[in-house]
Amino acid sequence: MADNVLILILDGIGDRPVKELDGKTPLEKAKTPNLDKLAEEGINGIMDTIAPGIIPGSDTGHLALLGYDPYEVYTGRGPYEAAGIGLEVKPGQIAFRCNFGTIEDGKLTDRRAGRIKEGTEELAEAVNDIDLGAEFHFQEAVEHRGVLILKGQGLGADVTDVDPHETGISYHEAEPVVDNKENKKTAEIVNEFTKKTVEVLSDHPINKKRINSGKPPANIILPRGAGAVPQMKPLSENKGLKSAAIAGIPLVKGVCRLAGMDIIDIEGATGGLDTDLEAIMKGIKSNIDEYDFIIANIKGFDLLGHDGLYHDKIKFIEKFDGNLGHLMDLKNIYIAITGDHSTPVTVKGHSGDPSPILIHGEEVRQDDVIKFDERSGTKGGLGRIYGSDVLNVMLDLAKRGEKFGA
Amino acid sequence: MADNVLILILDGIGDRPVKELDGKTPLEKAKTPNLDKLAEEGINGIMDTIAPGIIPGSDTGHLALLGYDPYEVYTGRGPYEAAGIGLEVKPGQIAFRCNFGTIEDGKLTDRRAGRIKEGTEELAEAVNDIDLGAEFHFQEAVEHRGVLILKGQGLGADVTDVDPHETGISYHEAEPVVDNKENKKTAEIVNEFTKKTVEVLSDHPINKKRINSGKPPANIILPRGAGAVPQMKPLSENKGLKSAAIAGIPLVKGVCRLAGMDIIDIEGATGGLDTDLEAIMKGIKSNIDEYDFIIANIKGFDLLGHDGLYHDKIKFIEKFDGNLGHLMDLKNIYIAITGDHSTPVTVKGHSGDPSPILIHGEEVRQDDVIKFDERSGTKGGLGRIYGSDVLNVMLDLAKRGEKFGA
Repeated sequence: MADNVLILILDGIGDRPVKELDGKTPLEKAKTPNLDKLAEEGINGIMDTIAPGIIPGSDTGHLALLGYDPYEVYTGRGPYEAAGIGLEVKPGQIAFRCNFGTIEDGKLTDRRAGRIKEGTEELAEAVNDIDLGAEFHFQEAVEHRGVLILKGQGLGADVTDVDPHETGISYHEAEPVVDNKENKKTAEIVNEFTKKTVEVLSDHPINKKRINSGKPPANIILPRGAGAVPQMKPLSENKGLKSAAIAGIPLVKGVCRLAGMDIIDIEGATGGLDTDLEAIMKGIKSNIDEYDFIIANIKGFDLLGHDGLYHDKIKFIEKFDGNLGHLMDLKNIYIAITGDHSTPVTVKGHSGDPSPILIHGEEVRQDDVIKFDERSGTKGGLGRIYGSDVLNVMLDLAKRGEKFGA
Repeated sequence: MADNVLILILDGIGDRPVKELDGKTPLEKAKTPNLDKLAEEGINGIMDTIAPGIIPGSDTGHLALLGYDPYEVYTGRGPYEAAGIGLEVKPGQIAFRCNFGTIEDGKLTDRRAGRIKEGTEELAEAVNDIDLGAEFHFQEAVEHRGVLILKGQGLGADVTDVDPHETGISYHEAEPVVDNKENKKTAEIVNEFTKKTVEVLSDHPINKKRINSGKPPANIILPRGAGAVPQMKPLSENKGLKSAAIAGIPLVKGVCRLAGMDIIDIEGATGGLDTDLEAIMKGIKSNIDEYDFIIANIKGFDLLGHDGLYHDKIKFIEKFDGNLGHLMDLKNIYIAITGDHSTPVTVKGHSGDPSPILIHGEEVRQDDVIKFDERSGTKGGLGRIYGSDVLNVMLDLAKRGEKFGA
């Protein structure tokens, strides 16, 4: 009988040796009895999410881990953010991440409009009334964030950002990166869109109120991260799987939604350091019988890597390990634990260092690794594999693979 | 001077830990002094025939091991079966595996026509006289088996099976999997073919005789496994090799024949458990000077994996190891021993678990592995390689490689 499959993504778990930790990585330094037990009973290795030395984003990393070729389906972050906030997007549409910003006398003074919290729904309504001569939809999201979707035909995704990523200057005009008709058309529309957002937002009652109470007006929308919505065969079709994702951040949710997965929303799963790890573990436990395959992303490791906080990363790892206890008695399941990329505290950003990986389940060829970490993994029976191999290996182990040939 | 190359494929040798064997695999449990001697003197690793977790068939597996990309040249089993029984097939033709079956009042009562042994040549003659309005050839093979080749232009290979793979119902109409002109044309022809086989076979004297003696008539031909004959550059051309294959089963012979290899027929090499291992070893020995490269497939391991018989698998491994003694004194040769896929007794089918591989020959970078099995291989100097690497590695070692670049 086929078993179920769980892939736990410890976002940014992989690290580099840290001088202050006697040359150990945070994961090597942390006390992780549960991870080590799974490593000891399982098979271990290291995993290049995309390829050795290639630095994955969370989006491209999860795409690879779900078996998609990011070089084929990824042209920008926009579509994944759009799907992540629940928008129905269709292949060929162009999506942008956006910020509400503040512009005064032609110069940006705040790229986040004072992290505006209220009134963006009304502002979005006004924006959607703009007559652009082209079909579009703008959707506000959390705080100053939003998503713009261009829906017409013959649009390109390879255009530069309107958002200049700094203040004190004007916004940029989007320009085609590759000079062709499609990219030109997109650039023209998005530039016109930006110009008109200033027109309709500047005198909007919400903004008048903001100015009166001393807050920066949200009087421009700044698109960035253009991408074409990809054609992705859902996992139900290309792997025959009923599958679901648990993730705190919209970007990862969006990748999983575009892979046709259900999204399991867990109260308290925030994608932050305050995320409710116990709730996540219990959410996995209560849903794993419902699904052939669940992927769960825990983000905190990555945040602490970005901030270079090795002690806090150790602490968060140990906290995770404690909560992992809730899953230790699961039966009839293959569990993989790995990262979507490394986020070394020495780099304070993503890196292409491979992530450790363990696979636990009844019929794995158990090896003699007894610890889950970057260097123990190199001695394991899995060797060095690719992110795009992970799901196939898991499905094969769980007797859910399909033979290619006769 | 260049050495000769031998690749021994122990079909389905790889396995998973078996509870009843104290968590060892059959290969780990078996006493294999000859394999272990070659492992000790050689270099070892594990090998993913196609890619980690991908479950190869015997056909796609051997294609990869001969350096072909199965995703490029494999559309179905038919052409390899056709070539395997010695038919001359040409790129673009569509080939099907077929069974003689028994149909009564529109319902299949036997998918193998009582495993008919005699008279199929005459039945095939009648079938080949059918006026189909399209060029075709039907060739009977062992017992109830046969092959159908459609020879016209503009034919597609992506059609469903006529053979319903069960009895008590009618046969299926072949349908295009992808709806295009080419597949439609193939489906129409093969459906018409099936219908007409019932017409010409039902009153055939051979079948009247069978009915009179209480045997089920062979009164329908059931095509399945459609595939387009691929364009494959022969090994003589793309690797400059005079090469030959030894194999018990037509499918593997067919892959090798389409790779332009000679087929060495060895009396007693059956592809079954009764195969004459000594004759195979002696056949290799007496032919290895004639050929730059020989590949030999021994099937028994796979059969016992399919049946879940771990004790018998151990015994067959030990029997093979004993006969391997005949090759231990070969000189000026590089020998690789591996599988085309795993067939774990716990899975009772093919799996994507990597196969162990050893390479033995004068100039290999000998490692410290001293046993040939799934887990010892993971500690070896070869690491984890792909099936498509194997022949290149062997040719390079044997000083038969060609430099790419200057």
